[in-house]
Amino acid sequence: MREKGELKFIGVVEVADQEEAKVRIFTEFCDALKGIVSFSHVIILYWFHLRDNEKERSVLQVVPRRHTKNVKVGVFACRSPSRPNPIGVCVVKLVKVEGCTLTVKGLDAFEFSPIIDVKPYTPRGDAVPNAYTPEWLSH
Amino acid sequence: MREKGELKFIGVVEVADQEEAKVRIFTEFCDALKGIVSFSHVIILYWFHLRDNEKERSVLQVVPRRHTKNVKVGVFACRSPSRPNPIGVCVVKLVKVEGCTLTVKGLDAFEFSPIIDVKPYTPRGDAVPNAYTPEWLSH
Repeated sequence: MREKGELKFIGVVEVADQEEAKVRIFTEFCDALKGIVSFSHVIILYWFHLRDNEKERSVLQVVPRRHTKNVKVGVFACRSPSRPNPIGVCVVKLVKVEGCTLTVKGLDAFEFSPIIDVKPYTPRGDAVPNAYTPEWLSH
Repeated sequence: MREKGELKFIGVVEVADQEEAKVRIFTEFCDALKGIVSFSHVIILYWFHLRDNEKERSVLQVVPRRHTKNVKVGVFACRSPSRPNPIGVCVVKLVKVEGCTLTVKGLDAFEFSPIIDVKPYTPRGDAVPNAYTPEWLSH
């Protein structure tokens, strides 16, 4: 098996704001947005560009921010941006689509974060309201 | 801005089965699973390796499978595996963790699909039960 994959960045976070972020999709990928306006929510995959270096990508365990005790958890068991592949996944509300720019609510990304993908949010597969999480996350 | 990112494959789908799939995380990344057993659901990011070629990665619009009419939608408005970055995102139930292998329910990936990331599912940010979707998806 090949060991690596190559990503093309398809857009960029132009305005980072929890209430109203702006994601600009590059012109060459803009046709891929057709029909997106019919969804209330989308999943944004973005690149933690500030963590894209060997040191941060070698981190396998961290003390999560919300943890009250000094206990390390694996990066696959938390949403740490330090991880082998610095990809963030964020469910956002789609507020507006203007040309190639999406205005969204709830995006937890920094300005200039490259965008990797946009996917429609479908409750049938994506929503698990009664999923449980460990106690440290509920603080 | 750089235009590309590099992914390391961190595991592989060893058994592809909607009811009970097996995802093996490579030994070197296995420590990153610590604590994952406390979550009922996880998000698996995987690579649509069969679509990782220029032709499939240039597709911007498709006729979605469930669509009753012959209408194209953008790949960012559906979950087509043909897309600029062939990444699948799937919410699965975590059935069992044995060593570096996760047994999961609901994984929509093929055998030998490389794994890119595993993230815990947290209803607070990931569950939007009342999200709406276009009519073509409800057929």
